[in-house]
Amino acid sequence: MKKHSIYLLFLFVFLASASFAQNRPKYIFYMIGDGMGLNQVHIAESYAAAIESRNTVFPLTFTQFPFATFATSFSLSHGVTDSAAAGTALSVGKKTKNGVIGMDSSRNETYKSIAYFAKESGMKVGVTTSVSIDHATPAAFYATQPDRGMYYEIGQDLVKSGFDFFAGAGFLSPEKNHKKEDAPSLFPQFEKAGYTLAYGLNDYNTKAKSATKIILMADKGASNESLTYAIDRKPEELTLQQITASAIQTLQKDNDNGFFLMVEGGKIDWACHSNDGATAIQETCDFDAAVAEAFQFYKQHPEETLIIVTADHETGGMVLGNGSSTLRLGNIQHQKISQGALSQKISDLRKASPNASWDQVKQVLQENIGLWNEIKPTEHEESDIKEAYQRSFVQHKNETEKSLYAIDDRIAALAVKSLNRASSISWASGNHSAAYIPIYAIGAGANLFSRKMDNVDIPTKIAEAAGWKMSTSKVSVKKK
Amino acid sequence: MKKHSIYLLFLFVFLASASFAQNRPKYIFYMIGDGMGLNQVHIAESYAAAIESRNTVFPLTFTQFPFATFATSFSLSHGVTDSAAAGTALSVGKKTKNGVIGMDSSRNETYKSIAYFAKESGMKVGVTTSVSIDHATPAAFYATQPDRGMYYEIGQDLVKSGFDFFAGAGFLSPEKNHKKEDAPSLFPQFEKAGYTLAYGLNDYNTKAKSATKIILMADKGASNESLTYAIDRKPEELTLQQITASAIQTLQKDNDNGFFLMVEGGKIDWACHSNDGATAIQETCDFDAAVAEAFQFYKQHPEETLIIVTADHETGGMVLGNGSSTLRLGNIQHQKISQGALSQKISDLRKASPNASWDQVKQVLQENIGLWNEIKPTEHEESDIKEAYQRSFVQHKNETEKSLYAIDDRIAALAVKSLNRASSISWASGNHSAAYIPIYAIGAGANLFSRKMDNVDIPTKIAEAAGWKMSTSKVSVKKK
Repeated sequence: MKKHSIYLLFLFVFLASASFAQNRPKYIFYMIGDGMGLNQVHIAESYAAAIESRNTVFPLTFTQFPFATFATSFSLSHGVTDSAAAGTALSVGKKTKNGVIGMDSSRNETYKSIAYFAKESGMKVGVTTSVSIDHATPAAFYATQPDRGMYYEIGQDLVKSGFDFFAGAGFLSPEKNHKKEDAPSLFPQFEKAGYTLAYGLNDYNTKAKSATKIILMADKGASNESLTYAIDRKPEELTLQQITASAIQTLQKDNDNGFFLMVEGGKIDWACHSNDGATAIQETCDFDAAVAEAFQFYKQHPEETLIIVTADHETGGMVLGNGSSTLRLGNIQHQKISQGALSQKISDLRKASPNASWDQVKQVLQENIGLWNEIKPTEHEESDIKEAYQRSFVQHKNETEKSLYAIDDRIAALAVKSLNRASSISWASGNHSAAYIPIYAIGAGANLFSRKMDNVDIPTKIAEAAGWKMSTSKVSVKKK
Repeated sequence: MKKHSIYLLFLFVFLASASFAQNRPKYIFYMIGDGMGLNQVHIAESYAAAIESRNTVFPLTFTQFPFATFATSFSLSHGVTDSAAAGTALSVGKKTKNGVIGMDSSRNETYKSIAYFAKESGMKVGVTTSVSIDHATPAAFYATQPDRGMYYEIGQDLVKSGFDFFAGAGFLSPEKNHKKEDAPSLFPQFEKAGYTLAYGLNDYNTKAKSATKIILMADKGASNESLTYAIDRKPEELTLQQITASAIQTLQKDNDNGFFLMVEGGKIDWACHSNDGATAIQETCDFDAAVAEAFQFYKQHPEETLIIVTADHETGGMVLGNGSSTLRLGNIQHQKISQGALSQKISDLRKASPNASWDQVKQVLQENIGLWNEIKPTEHEESDIKEAYQRSFVQHKNETEKSLYAIDDRIAALAVKSLNRASSISWASGNHSAAYIPIYAIGAGANLFSRKMDNVDIPTKIAEAAGWKMSTSKVSVKKK
């Protein structure tokens, strides 16, 4: 072979690898911010700059990914999806009706989630969340149930999954089935299926070495419903970032076949249902800390890792900008605790001093969310808050504001509403909206996420990147 | 050369062209929907399906482009930009303060717009809009003025531009300078600079053949401020699609060097300032019709054409979904005319029958936006509308609702508000919001638009695709 044709051959090999050899991801991170619409992300980034009085954004980890686009999220039954139909779309690539986990809308057939394709390909699989492990979004990755509320039955599907790592706050109904009948506890069933149960990070660290499969939950005594909001969290409490790091550790151990890890930031949604902007911002940043953990891993395995960050839907119709061109988003830093924790403080005051004065209540609001000392409520807002005080502390009518995941004190809800208005944040409702979900991608196969799509396209494209024939999931199976 | 090395050579040439030969665009379409946030686009797509009772989206032309992402839009002075600072960011790739056209925020130095880079590269250049040609967005492409309201001076900059095609409704102050002093009419100055003035499509068609440079305006007698809203338009009135087709025709004529064409859909913003959802939807679709014209051209020159579709900012904090998971967006089809036209009808009734009955006013609302016959207002909404009627037709106080581009009758504004609520549309304010702007791209260089960016990155990347050294615009020039 002549010299120039050897050069040509080198060039050929180089160009061929550059053009065609799309690496298949060996490590897949599928990270879902529940309720995290585009505005939630933008507001978190703007807030980080606003507290330094900078009129710009300080980017989160995932917003710097080389691919960023967006997708529609309507379900088969509703223009506005719930987390069950959205979780199903994101996990199996098919639309179903609101409330259904991994099944068709007539609830006769089950669908196969991308996590099972990963498992069958030889990967280890992890499913994690900051809420309960049987909640709609994580459930959609391992369970198939006609109703998202069938927590016990969802737990039974976990036993059958054979997946390698689960984590979240706990289980909502481990001893009662969906008919509210007593049923054999799920926990021995988990152990029988080979899962080591770990409660909190210390317990996980003690047990992880000898365990093969793990279910990591919050510390004993902590809530089984969800991890504490980032804004309220004590240093010793379990975090989504710790869960993500633990998942990576467990899934990597004695494993050459890669892994698939779903991580849900579940409480951005909860904060937005309460229209609690400060808490939503902190939850979004906390979710980003989990993404940063995945990104650290990516940097060690850049050719073999795919990270997808997305959401199931937007919650609250959150908007930055409510009239003035000058944003006052920095004001929201004066809120030190969540609306739920503020409600608790007011409730505590009511118990301690049922006839507490208006000044005492004002002081609670001042100390915790900066009303009056830092932020002046409008006359109308002050009159609303005072009226709620009168009814609660003078007339002793206990008034509450109910959102999907919280029953908050009305005084607290009105105070937070005032602070949000004063921080240039507007809300359309306490429910989800139909807004696009954002998608961010980096790594092997990320280039598939360049165009506007529908939510069902996301797992389909991940499967395409991984080389799995997701279309076979169309051959669905009758539920027994 | 042996046979196999010839094969290798072929492969090399093929792969090299596939890998590296990024075509430079010869034809650049830069299409800007003023006020067209992500939700405006999504709502237009959802509406098209909703009127057929389909729970999905029927895509617009541009949402199907292979690249779709989004960008921040804050200005140098404000978290919420205006169209002048946004237009400057989109045209010169630099932030400035709200109100400024193509200059730095101290208003000492002028910036050079991408349209001038196009012109210098040998391309023909067109700047077009559905509002006045001297309005902020189009002005940012050819003018440099310290204040967007300096319409006369902006018109003088047009004379100096040397660009080849302008189109829009007309000019706002062709005979008075910014000090409101009489000044020599701009129109003879345009003609002296070589521009043929055409009024309406027929006049354009008559004059286009012999003209080299053209300024196309609305028909004589029509508004110089803006083209009629799509929802109100009569068949004979000039459209943005016709402007786009005319621009392509003129810029292509006797020209082998390609062109750069900016097209603004300027009244999505205006409709959103009035929180008039139906009108905003029709304007978005009308803008898409102009994009479709560009897309037809793209299909004939796919290797040489780049189309970028974006927005300057979002207007209104528009949200789809205001509480229920069931969307009732189809309801908004009952609105047959814009809020402005409805205001005119109520005003006409007041002139004809100053003491018109409540039933007469209700009938106007029924016939034009379907209130009561198709859509039931809430009790609260009905009482608000009736109160406005009382003040206007009984007490003869003329009440209006002022937005940036309209002074609407209060009865009309309240009726449209009711219809929007009943159509699952919520609004945060009558001003712009800080929400991301969408970006869609197809053609040569479109791959540069894969990631989240800032608005100033958009012209920079277009310049990169075209091979222009946009960074030289940093050498800015003191304004005389």
